[in-house]
Amino acid sequence: MIDGIEVKELKMIKDNRGFLMEILRGSDKIKSDGQGAFGQMYISTAYPAVIKGKHMHKLQTDHLTVIKGRGAIHLEDQREGSPTKGKKEVILVGEDNWKLVKIPPGIWHSTENVGTEVCYFINYVTREYNHKEPDEYRGAFDENERKMPWKPLIMG
Amino acid sequence: MIDGIEVKELKMIKDNRGFLMEILRGSDKIKSDGQGAFGQMYISTAYPAVIKGKHMHKLQTDHLTVIKGRGAIHLEDQREGSPTKGKKEVILVGEDNWKLVKIPPGIWHSTENVGTEVCYFINYVTREYNHKEPDEYRGAFDENERKMPWKPLIMG
Repeated sequence: MIDGIEVKELKMIKDNRGFLMEILRGSDKIKSDGQGAFGQMYISTAYPAVIKGKHMHKLQTDHLTVIKGRGAIHLEDQREGSPTKGKKEVILVGEDNWKLVKIPPGIWHSTENVGTEVCYFINYVTREYNHKEPDEYRGAFDENERKMPWKPLIMG
Repeated sequence: MIDGIEVKELKMIKDNRGFLMEILRGSDKIKSDGQGAFGQMYISTAYPAVIKGKHMHKLQTDHLTVIKGRGAIHLEDQREGSPTKGKKEVILVGEDNWKLVKIPPGIWHSTENVGTEVCYFINYVTREYNHKEPDEYRGAFDENERKMPWKPLIMG
């Protein structure tokens, strides 16, 4: 696992009316970033096969989950001095993989819809988005780096 | 409007990949409850025609929205000394009504799915849920009080 990435398994409580799932608590270990004040929460959707990113923040920590659909979070550590510098990984989130992923500053990340329906990403971030001076750096997602474990085999 | 209820209109930014919608910022007026630390966020879904509630909290403030589907939030003010004591109202949220509703302590509320698909409610609450001593009081929703403006007329 890339240094600093944390994952919280989410528990879905179901009944005949629907489900309830806690996403994030102020006292969660995964929330222990010393930034107690409320930052911002937003939703971002992706149509099937869409990849958003890659993005990187210098100050902000993301707490990303999928609450509907099947998503993949692509991560890439290019931080100088990081013990996992150069490492890339993919975490599946959403249906069958209910979890929250904490992404500290400095790690490049992309969100992908790997399902057949619209995918709903919820993100709690530790800082408010500043339109004038956004803490958001953008790069191009490298399609050749899409190393999903279930990538279909092309039979020769 | 019931005293203390606040509504924030949410703005959906769409493109060919999906949409992005800010839900809540720490500096939002609607978040100005003096409880700066992060409480908790969770998701609750409701199948069509399901009503969850009614509920009331003595300490916690809810910030409730629908990010998929069509919901209705039923509100009832039974607070002693409130200038709007006895008042009931319904706020539509979700599709065609993207908004966040702040519900301060003491106000009874129920969430209803008024659409044909599963409805996804997201709630940011100012306190963590305490399983041992929950700040949650429950009552029965009175079906006769369901006064939706678009309630179908039965022609005689």
